[in-house]
Amino acid sequence: MTSPSSPAAPAPKKDPWDLPDVSGLVVGVLGGTGDQGRGLAYRLARAGQKVIIGSRAAERAQQAADELGHGVEGAENAECARRSDVVIVAVPWDGHAKTLESLREELSGKLVVDCVNPLGFDKKGAYALKPEEGSAAEQAAALLPDSRVTAAFHHLSAVLLSDPEVEEIETDVMVLGEVRADCEIVQALAGRIPGMRGVFAGRLRNAHQVESLVANLISVNRRYKAHAGVRLTDI
Amino acid sequence: MTSPSSPAAPAPKKDPWDLPDVSGLVVGVLGGTGDQGRGLAYRLARAGQKVIIGSRAAERAQQAADELGHGVEGAENAECARRSDVVIVAVPWDGHAKTLESLREELSGKLVVDCVNPLGFDKKGAYALKPEEGSAAEQAAALLPDSRVTAAFHHLSAVLLSDPEVEEIETDVMVLGEVRADCEIVQALAGRIPGMRGVFAGRLRNAHQVESLVANLISVNRRYKAHAGVRLTDI
Repeated sequence: MTSPSSPAAPAPKKDPWDLPDVSGLVVGVLGGTGDQGRGLAYRLARAGQKVIIGSRAAERAQQAADELGHGVEGAENAECARRSDVVIVAVPWDGHAKTLESLREELSGKLVVDCVNPLGFDKKGAYALKPEEGSAAEQAAALLPDSRVTAAFHHLSAVLLSDPEVEEIETDVMVLGEVRADCEIVQALAGRIPGMRGVFAGRLRNAHQVESLVANLISVNRRYKAHAGVRLTDI
Repeated sequence: MTSPSSPAAPAPKKDPWDLPDVSGLVVGVLGGTGDQGRGLAYRLARAGQKVIIGSRAAERAQQAADELGHGVEGAENAECARRSDVVIVAVPWDGHAKTLESLREELSGKLVVDCVNPLGFDKKGAYALKPEEGSAAEQAAALLPDSRVTAAFHHLSAVLLSDPEVEEIETDVMVLGEVRADCEIVQALAGRIPGMRGVFAGRLRNAHQVESLVANLISVNRRYKAHAGVRLTDI
């Protein structure tokens, strides 16, 4: 790496891999009874994180939590949001706006991590849907002006996440957001799961293509009979 | 892998890694004097492929070809297209439509590989541009109804491609298209470059997010001082 030399040398750049300790944070997972949410909750809890899964019905959340073990708790979505420091949004795309609107108050001040992939499906497979706001993450940011919205965890295979025999999830998690400190918390969270790295990958205005890439991974999975993930090389 | 058993067992599925021999094909690179085109031309020629780079001016193409060595030839765009079996489109986005329109006849029947990333840039960095047709690749398909249009080679670092000290390019090339045999030719071409794999990643309607992901890689490169590429895991 080269850097310009000058009489007044600038302060050394921060190491992008120097991430905060997030082990004490409570992570909520809205939509935690769905495949993606449950898989993420399982991996984070297994890595030692305190996790609360949220659902519209507290009873269903509690049941899913009991199945996951590792100290996972279940709660109705609003309580899940209130009790968590970081809230992962893993609801289906068609309930995305409505769910977030209803939780605006509970999510105020919270670090929100949107991992929703707006996709359509037809006979030819999956295709990207383009939300009016640009992406699911930008929709979340528009609906939650008092929250700190980031986007991450889009490309994970629910099958691999949920399989207790799988020790490591070989993938990088692209983390997007406007505020570096918030992104770094999410990156650190991803890094707690063995095999995963959290990588900063741009601002929310560049979330649409990250969300939509899942349509391509679905094609890859179909052709190669795989559970494809993404690794970034040279970092 | 599970498969349904039935009295009349279906023919075994084709191995997705069983790709054709493309060593005898002539590869043209339109926009071959730009960074991306020149880098790709260099890597393919170094791998033993016959390569012709095209430019608006034959002289400039010839000069770039002479610099690259490895038997690369230079020609005016139209001649480059006429003489090639596979034509990689590596022109700047703002000349994309005009260049392809002008070469409709020469590209008739040819396998066209679009690797153009429609991006805008402002103070906050790069962002995706959405072509009216959906993507650069779909624009190419609309403008070239008599060509076999695919999309690939979007995420390569021109710096790494052009560096003769770099022996392997550690990345997967996502290949998109409508016709499997055409995609497989492009996958095989990518696979000739050491370190690269060509991976089928969907239809052209899912090209936009693959093209736009370059905006994210630019953010990654900036944060990590890297030349990031993409690998797909579990395949």
